[in-house]
Amino acid sequence: MGSLTNHLLSTGHAVRLAARSNALTGPTSGLAPSYLQANLIVLPQRYAADFRLLCARNPVPCPLLAESSHPGAFDELKSYIRRSGSDAHPLLVAASDIDLRHDAPQYRVYRDGKLLVGERTDIVDEWQDGDHVGFLIGCSYSFEAALAEAGLPCRHVVQDRNVPMYRTNIALCPAGVFTGGTYVVSMRPYQLEDVDKVREITRRFVATHGEPIAWGWEAAASLGIEDIGCPEWGEGPRCLDGKQVYRQGADEGFVPVFWGCGVTPQEAVMRAELKGTVMGHAPGHMIVLDVQEQEVFGGPVDASEGADE
Amino acid sequence: MGSLTNHLLSTGHAVRLAARSNALTGPTSGLAPSYLQANLIVLPQRYAADFRLLCARNPVPCPLLAESSHPGAFDELKSYIRRSGSDAHPLLVAASDIDLRHDAPQYRVYRDGKLLVGERTDIVDEWQDGDHVGFLIGCSYSFEAALAEAGLPCRHVVQDRNVPMYRTNIALCPAGVFTGGTYVVSMRPYQLEDVDKVREITRRFVATHGEPIAWGWEAAASLGIEDIGCPEWGEGPRCLDGKQVYRQGADEGFVPVFWGCGVTPQEAVMRAELKGTVMGHAPGHMIVLDVQEQEVFGGPVDASEGADE
Repeated sequence: MGSLTNHLLSTGHAVRLAARSNALTGPTSGLAPSYLQANLIVLPQRYAADFRLLCARNPVPCPLLAESSHPGAFDELKSYIRRSGSDAHPLLVAASDIDLRHDAPQYRVYRDGKLLVGERTDIVDEWQDGDHVGFLIGCSYSFEAALAEAGLPCRHVVQDRNVPMYRTNIALCPAGVFTGGTYVVSMRPYQLEDVDKVREITRRFVATHGEPIAWGWEAAASLGIEDIGCPEWGEGPRCLDGKQVYRQGADEGFVPVFWGCGVTPQEAVMRAELKGTVMGHAPGHMIVLDVQEQEVFGGPVDASEGADE
Repeated sequence: MGSLTNHLLSTGHAVRLAARSNALTGPTSGLAPSYLQANLIVLPQRYAADFRLLCARNPVPCPLLAESSHPGAFDELKSYIRRSGSDAHPLLVAASDIDLRHDAPQYRVYRDGKLLVGERTDIVDEWQDGDHVGFLIGCSYSFEAALAEAGLPCRHVVQDRNVPMYRTNIALCPAGVFTGGTYVVSMRPYQLEDVDKVREITRRFVATHGEPIAWGWEAAASLGIEDIGCPEWGEGPRCLDGKQVYRQGADEGFVPVFWGCGVTPQEAVMRAELKGTVMGHAPGHMIVLDVQEQEVFGGPVDASEGADE
């Protein structure tokens, strides 16, 4: 990160500018606290309508936050971000000064469905003017802060590890060319008696995966996860001691809790074996937006019964 | 239907008035062609926020069209119906002269999670002023007409039978009190080579389940459907001759094609074993709206590649 320190990157805009100038090339976790971070997928425009529909049909793993205002646009976004619980409010501006070709610290490039070797700090050479459409998808960093504030910190954050992510057998609702995709989930261990509170805290984060989709060891089996110690993405989970691999029987009473994961759309795009050039951020190296969590999700709500509306 | 004939019930409003006066007590299939028909669920308001979230997280089986404008409101709706493909258009008025307590031809009532014996033509005695919230959910009648127009009529329509509906093992994304629910699907047999066209035709019907979620005999097995001849709701499917039970091996090359089904929310509500009085329309006896399909879904689109936007 050169001479940059985290406290200088206190806004989404500052993080984007740092990534744009290559002063920042590392992961964005912990940067610009309270600003929404986003997964990026860039597709040729012929796949854009189907991808939009894939997100609309699968909003828990694929919450669409914004997209290029028109095919080829890398510096102007159409936002779908609403204030939580309201249809009436105007849409929030996702990010004003943005360049989708530069503003993630690291990118991945896929050609005809195959990942190219090496990550890169920009995708200027790959971006097709008039054709490529960038999509920004919600990311779970925001609810992790809320869990910590409620005294239920995420273990991987405490242990300074990447969150474990797993392929599952839960089918996505197909949309056009996007068939055969399945949910990717992230996992955080909690005591069974804390699961209701964890569900309640994360429920309002609708645009960033919301409440868990499943929890418990039986759920792990029914999702088709054979070895919780060996995730497909991120780092293997550890027990409280930070050393032993987290597994059933070595779990100290903590059950796995699973959330929809923003890797899902990237996985769905790969399964569809799209022709042409597809791009995405490198895992953990997100695009940070101008929108603040408070604007989108409001404050914690009283979850007592009758508190709707 | 007394002296009423179908051609007099040519608008959603006419159907509602006929149901309201008990001149119409039968199913609504085929009435008011081109007007949107809706599934109804009525819940105590303490469950309303969770149900709204259940729909938002599972839009394919549970597409929420409208709800009571405030708790207790049976004659004023808040609409969520948008013109397809547009965020900018104003929301469409679901229905102006409506009474959710009267306007379905037949209702079902559940107490503390148990179905009461007997259907009824109104729910005036059960409706709690200031508390009950009615929800209207999309129904697949609209895309059936589009399939017929494209030369791919639904077999159950041709055979004048009810569509077969099945419980599956596909988990809904849980929301608050609504846990443990699974997709209910409707099934229509098609030749495998017609499935792409069937998918394409139904794709734009986003607010009424949209394109299929799965197709083929392997899919039937992976959804957990053990006997395609014995659906949990509707009538058992038949072969082309109208007599033989439709089953693998006796299928004349027609594979089962599965869509998300509007029975899903009613099933989810039952699984949640809600306390108090819950109501719904009787299957097939829908509430017909003022909105016309053309307004919501537009016309058929050119599905050739590059045709998005």
